[in-house]
Amino acid sequence: MAHIDLHNDFPGIRGLMHFRPETARPLNELVDVLLRGPNTLTVGERELIATYVSARNECHYCQTIHGAVAAHHLGGDEALVLDVKRDAQNADISNKLKALLVIAGKTAESGRLVTESDVAKARACGATDIEIHDTVLIAAVFCLCNRYVDGLATWAPDDPDFYRQRGAVIAEHGYTASTIATATGTVPPHS
Amino acid sequence: MAHIDLHNDFPGIRGLMHFRPETARPLNELVDVLLRGPNTLTVGERELIATYVSARNECHYCQTIHGAVAAHHLGGDEALVLDVKRDAQNADISNKLKALLVIAGKTAESGRLVTESDVAKARACGATDIEIHDTVLIAAVFCLCNRYVDGLATWAPDDPDFYRQRGAVIAEHGYTASTIATATGTVPPHS
Repeated sequence: MAHIDLHNDFPGIRGLMHFRPETARPLNELVDVLLRGPNTLTVGERELIATYVSARNECHYCQTIHGAVAAHHLGGDEALVLDVKRDAQNADISNKLKALLVIAGKTAESGRLVTESDVAKARACGATDIEIHDTVLIAAVFCLCNRYVDGLATWAPDDPDFYRQRGAVIAEHGYTASTIATATGTVPPHS
Repeated sequence: MAHIDLHNDFPGIRGLMHFRPETARPLNELVDVLLRGPNTLTVGERELIATYVSARNECHYCQTIHGAVAAHHLGGDEALVLDVKRDAQNADISNKLKALLVIAGKTAESGRLVTESDVAKARACGATDIEIHDTVLIAAVFCLCNRYVDGLATWAPDDPDFYRQRGAVIAEHGYTASTIATATGTVPPHS
């Protein structure tokens, strides 16, 4: 049970967003532009960064829903998502993404841990300044989301199918649209 | 020097926001509604929460600029801001704000550290559900901002007067307006 009365039974961050739509709107817009906007990193790569950081922060809801969205964008490859969470440096991903995940992991602990050498390695693997910037910001945004979800003790479903179905809705509609859609009843509340 | 070429010489998060206006817009809107929107917590109290979390995360730029904004809203009381950063539980602030700062401090470390007892203590001091929610979200948002600013190694001025002057601009205009104003040249770039 959440620490406060949310007046709704949506799980994870969605319950908080329905409780406080004033802050939900810009937060959804930030996540939409960062994870789904035009970018040389694919949506799947960006969702993997979000999943990786959420796993490091041990946020069950965020790592599972973003893992499901990532898998959806990666042709349903749930095994790859698990590999990235467990041992990213030996997963079947590009060297550029491995280098960016090092930066993301350090950012999740403290921004001050990211070194010039970490950034030089990512650049040597072909990462651009925008990609390095967006990696740090994605990691930072999920440090927000993980703390928001867990700091208020929101509930998270156990059923993996819940996340698969919801991941497909998000992958199709995006964060703002799928939150608004559930609020207005055009998408079933628990999909 | 920042880890990436920002093509501008604004300090702290402002350099990043001018580099990436697509993400700056919703992030500024989030901070404006959370720190300056209608609320039973004063702007000074909310800026103190932001300052406290930024100090715990050892982010020099964020703790100094938000400390300056907080002091501006607290009648120029810079000593109180320092007291809150150093020893909040013995500072001259309300018991409610002390209880909320305990929640904010735990959220900054990990959302999973916030207990029912922490929330019950805040409620016993008069905190509402919205105030508890907003405290967790302010703490989470500044975990974002601190990591963003430090993860990309932005520069921060040393001169305390820089922060006093900039704090006054933010206190008057808000985050979105003062960022846009500096971009369009209506406010001097280094104020």
